[in-house]
Amino acid sequence: MRARDLLADFPTVGLDSPVIEAARMLADHDLPGLIVIGDDGAPFTILPGTEVLRLAVPRYCQDDPALARVVDEAHADAFLDGLSDRTVREALPRQKRELPVTDPGATVLELAALMARTRSPLVAVVDGGRLAGAVTLQALLDRVLAA
Amino acid sequence: MRARDLLADFPTVGLDSPVIEAARMLADHDLPGLIVIGDDGAPFTILPGTEVLRLAVPRYCQDDPALARVVDEAHADAFLDGLSDRTVREALPRQKRELPVTDPGATVLELAALMARTRSPLVAVVDGGRLAGAVTLQALLDRVLAA
Repeated sequence: MRARDLLADFPTVGLDSPVIEAARMLADHDLPGLIVIGDDGAPFTILPGTEVLRLAVPRYCQDDPALARVVDEAHADAFLDGLSDRTVREALPRQKRELPVTDPGATVLELAALMARTRSPLVAVVDGGRLAGAVTLQALLDRVLAA
Repeated sequence: MRARDLLADFPTVGLDSPVIEAARMLADHDLPGLIVIGDDGAPFTILPGTEVLRLAVPRYCQDDPALARVVDEAHADAFLDGLSDRTVREALPRQKRELPVTDPGATVLELAALMARTRSPLVAVVDGGRLAGAVTLQALLDRVLAA
């Protein structure tokens, strides 16, 4: 079994995409993160959904989440409004999260080793400099356990 | 909107559960992690799927994933065999991953603040000392964007 047998399309965003669009993709595709494509068209990093929240949630609430409860429910429900005009680039953590990358010929052991080393539940598969898809930890376990 | 309106059942494992069972649950439920219930019956931590792989993949492959490719495909496909008799407790990272916990009355802003602070895409909701379910980042974004 090789990466080419396991890969699936995976949603991507650009560095200058509106971050609210990223939030919609996370919700629509039921994913905890998205692949970010760099300015050169190659996979650049991963945008964890929690970083989208870090951009949207006021600093004082992150420091002490109990303080968030004093905000009334109507305002609490609208906390994503602060994301208008913000981009994916602004949501990325200062220390870029490593997105492991391999080619379609990688074995399942190599994919698992990449996920284990980087603690990423996702490996991007690149063919000829372009993203061909991604292998998720879930897809990997599913196929290995069924074999 | 409160945690009680957003929570859903979330698969759990015990500390002494076989880790191969955890691997099956990750695959079956298409999840990157599971909630671990402690010996006292309360949610204890999160088991990221990548830690299951760290227990299964030989150390030399993690240090240099390219070395994994020299293992022939049949042996590569069988890399989970090393997990037999290992438990969830053995797969947990030395530094326990923080699982944020709240009660059913938490607002969406409080849930988002908890996810942002701990970088966890999951908050456990506890009612009377027992796990009532969990709110995922995806469910949170889905409901807030639809509101």
